[in-house]
Amino acid sequence: MGLPSKTGRTYASVGVDRGAVAVGLRALLEEARYRAPSTSGRPLPLPGHFAGLLRIGTLTVALTTDTIGTKGLLAQELDRWEEVGEDVVAINVNDLAAVGARPAALVDTISMPKSDPAILAALGRGIRQGLEKAECSLVGGETALVPELVNGVDLGATALGFFPPGRRPITGRSIRVGDSILGIPSSGVHANGLTLARRIAAGSPGGYAGTRRGGSRPLGEELLTPTRCYVRAVEAIAANPAVHGLAHISGGGVRNLTRLKAGLSFQLDAWPRPSGIFRFLSREGKVASQEMYQTFNMGIGFVVVCQPSHSTEVSARLAKAGYPDVLRVGRVGPGHGVQLPELGLSYEGYG
Amino acid sequence: MGLPSKTGRTYASVGVDRGAVAVGLRALLEEARYRAPSTSGRPLPLPGHFAGLLRIGTLTVALTTDTIGTKGLLAQELDRWEEVGEDVVAINVNDLAAVGARPAALVDTISMPKSDPAILAALGRGIRQGLEKAECSLVGGETALVPELVNGVDLGATALGFFPPGRRPITGRSIRVGDSILGIPSSGVHANGLTLARRIAAGSPGGYAGTRRGGSRPLGEELLTPTRCYVRAVEAIAANPAVHGLAHISGGGVRNLTRLKAGLSFQLDAWPRPSGIFRFLSREGKVASQEMYQTFNMGIGFVVVCQPSHSTEVSARLAKAGYPDVLRVGRVGPGHGVQLPELGLSYEGYG
Repeated sequence: MGLPSKTGRTYASVGVDRGAVAVGLRALLEEARYRAPSTSGRPLPLPGHFAGLLRIGTLTVALTTDTIGTKGLLAQELDRWEEVGEDVVAINVNDLAAVGARPAALVDTISMPKSDPAILAALGRGIRQGLEKAECSLVGGETALVPELVNGVDLGATALGFFPPGRRPITGRSIRVGDSILGIPSSGVHANGLTLARRIAAGSPGGYAGTRRGGSRPLGEELLTPTRCYVRAVEAIAANPAVHGLAHISGGGVRNLTRLKAGLSFQLDAWPRPSGIFRFLSREGKVASQEMYQTFNMGIGFVVVCQPSHSTEVSARLAKAGYPDVLRVGRVGPGHGVQLPELGLSYEGYG
Repeated sequence: MGLPSKTGRTYASVGVDRGAVAVGLRALLEEARYRAPSTSGRPLPLPGHFAGLLRIGTLTVALTTDTIGTKGLLAQELDRWEEVGEDVVAINVNDLAAVGARPAALVDTISMPKSDPAILAALGRGIRQGLEKAECSLVGGETALVPELVNGVDLGATALGFFPPGRRPITGRSIRVGDSILGIPSSGVHANGLTLARRIAAGSPGGYAGTRRGGSRPLGEELLTPTRCYVRAVEAIAANPAVHGLAHISGGGVRNLTRLKAGLSFQLDAWPRPSGIFRFLSREGKVASQEMYQTFNMGIGFVVVCQPSHSTEVSARLAKAGYPDVLRVGRVGPGHGVQLPELGLSYEGYG
C-alpha cells in the first residue's frame, strides 16, 4: 500500500472529528432518556447498533435514519443528482439489512435553498433506482426550502423494516470465536468520508475532471458512484441460523464491526488490499492507513459473520443472489476490537 | 383585525414559495414512483395526507417526517435549544395523530457545523419533553457534522405510529356536509412560518428582546415556544366512529384541511379572531390576512371534524384529556376548499 500507518492527514483535520461526535451524542442520549409505557410498543435494547428495533404486538420492526452528508456538495459541484438519490435509499436500507430486517417503507427529507424541479426530478429518479433494488416503498417525505440554513442539498431519509414470520433479528449476539468473516465488495467510497475525499480529489492535479491512474472515469464521477445495495444479500441468508452477525461498513469504516459484539476480536487477516479509488485517496491525500480504515469502507461495503462450517454454503447463496464477488476477509478471535494484522492496525470501539 | 386581505408581505417574498415547493415535489414524486412487491408490506393510498400508511401482516403503521426548518436559526440567535428539541418531536407525532395513529418510535436527524455537547444536551432535554408528552420512544438518530453544508442546526425527525387493535386510520373519507369542525388552540406559531416571523420580529423596534403590546415575554422567546402536543387529544377520541377527520394545522395553515377530503368545503365561520403573536405579526409585518392564514396556524393547532350530534361528547372527552380549551370553529359545507367568510378568505387546495 505504501500508506503511512499512523501519521498523515486525518478526518478531524478537515473538520470531521469522530470523537467529538461521540461526546456530543452521549450528551444528547443521556438527556433524552425516557421509557414509554408498553402500550406504545416495546423497544428492544440494541444500543449503538445499525437500527432501532421495536416490538408492536406480534411484529418486530426496525427503524434507521441517515443522510448523505457532504456527498450532496459533490453532486452540486458536478450538477448530477441521480446518484445521491439512489444513495439516500441504499445507506438506509443497508442499515436495516445489517440487523436482518426486510425494508418496507422509506421517507425522504430534503433541505435545500430553493425549489429546483430539475434537481428534485433527478433525485426522484435516483430514489426510484434505490427503491427498486431494495423492493421498498416511498410513503412520504419532507422538502424544506431553507436558504438561510443550508448551502446545498441536505438529503436524508428514514427507512422502516420488519421481520417476516420466522425471521429473527440478527444482532451479532451469537457470534463466537472461530466464526468466519465474509465481505461483499463496495461500489466505491459509498456515502462516507466525502468531506475528505472531495478535498483530496478537488486538490489533485486534474481536479474532479481528472482521471486517477488506472481509473476509467473522471474522479468526481467515480466518487459519486451510488452505494451498493446489500438488501438482496441479506434476504438470501437471513433465515439461516448459521449467520451470526451482519455489518454495514459505513462511517467509521472497519470500526463498524465493533457494533456487533464486545468481548471478542475481529481479525481482518484477509481483507483485500485496497485498490482503485482507495489507493488513490491514501496516496494523493497522504492519509495514514489507520485513518483510511476508520473513514472509508476500503473496498468492502458489507460484512457477514457466520459459523465457519457454513461459510461455503452462505457464500454460494450470496453468489446466487447477485453477489458472486463475496470473499473471506477474516475470522473472529479472542480479545477485543478490530485488527488488521498485516498492516499493524488496531481499533478499540466504534466511537 | 385590521389586516389587509390580499396585499402586503407574502411568504414568497422572504424566499419561501409554497407553489414552487409543490412543483418541485411533484417532479420528485413522479420520478420516484415505484410499486414494491407485497412481500415488502402494502402501502395504503393516502396521497398528500399527514402520514404514510403501510400494512405489514395484520398491523397498520404510519410514518411521518418533518424538520423544524428555520426555527433552528431562532434557537441559534437566542442560544436556547430545549424548545426546538421538543418541537421536533411534537411536529412529527402531531402528524401521526392527524391520521389517528398512536406514536411508538422516533428517530432524530441533526446536521450541524460542529459538535457542541451543550447544544446537543439541551436538544436531548427538549426531545425527552416531547417524548413524554407523546409517550413515544427514541430508538435511534443520526448526527452529521457538515460545516460546509449547514449554517446552523438542521433538525428533523421521523416518527413511527401504529393502530392499536380495533382502531382504524382516520383519513377524512367519512367527512360529510354538516359535520362540525372543532379546533384546539395552538401554543403560538409552533414550527411554521418562522422565516417570515423571525424577519418581522427581528426588524421590529425592540427586536427579539422587545415585548409586543400585550405580551409578557420577549418576542424571541415567545416565538420559540414549543409546539403543543395533540397526541393525548387523539388518543381520547380516536376510537369514536363519529370522529371523521383530523388535521394538524402546520405549514400551509388552514389549507391543511383540504388534505382531508375533496368535494366539500370547510367553512371556518367561527375561527377565533387572531390575537397575541398573530395579531402582532400581521400588523408589524404588514402581512395580508390571505397570507397569514396559509402561513401560520392562526391560533388553532389541531382540528377535529366530527358528526354534529357527537360534538358535545367529543369536546367533553377532549376537555377531560387535557384540552379544555377546544372550541367549535366551523362546519363542513358543500362546494370545495376552505373559506373564512367573515374575512372574505378562500383557499382552493393545499399546494
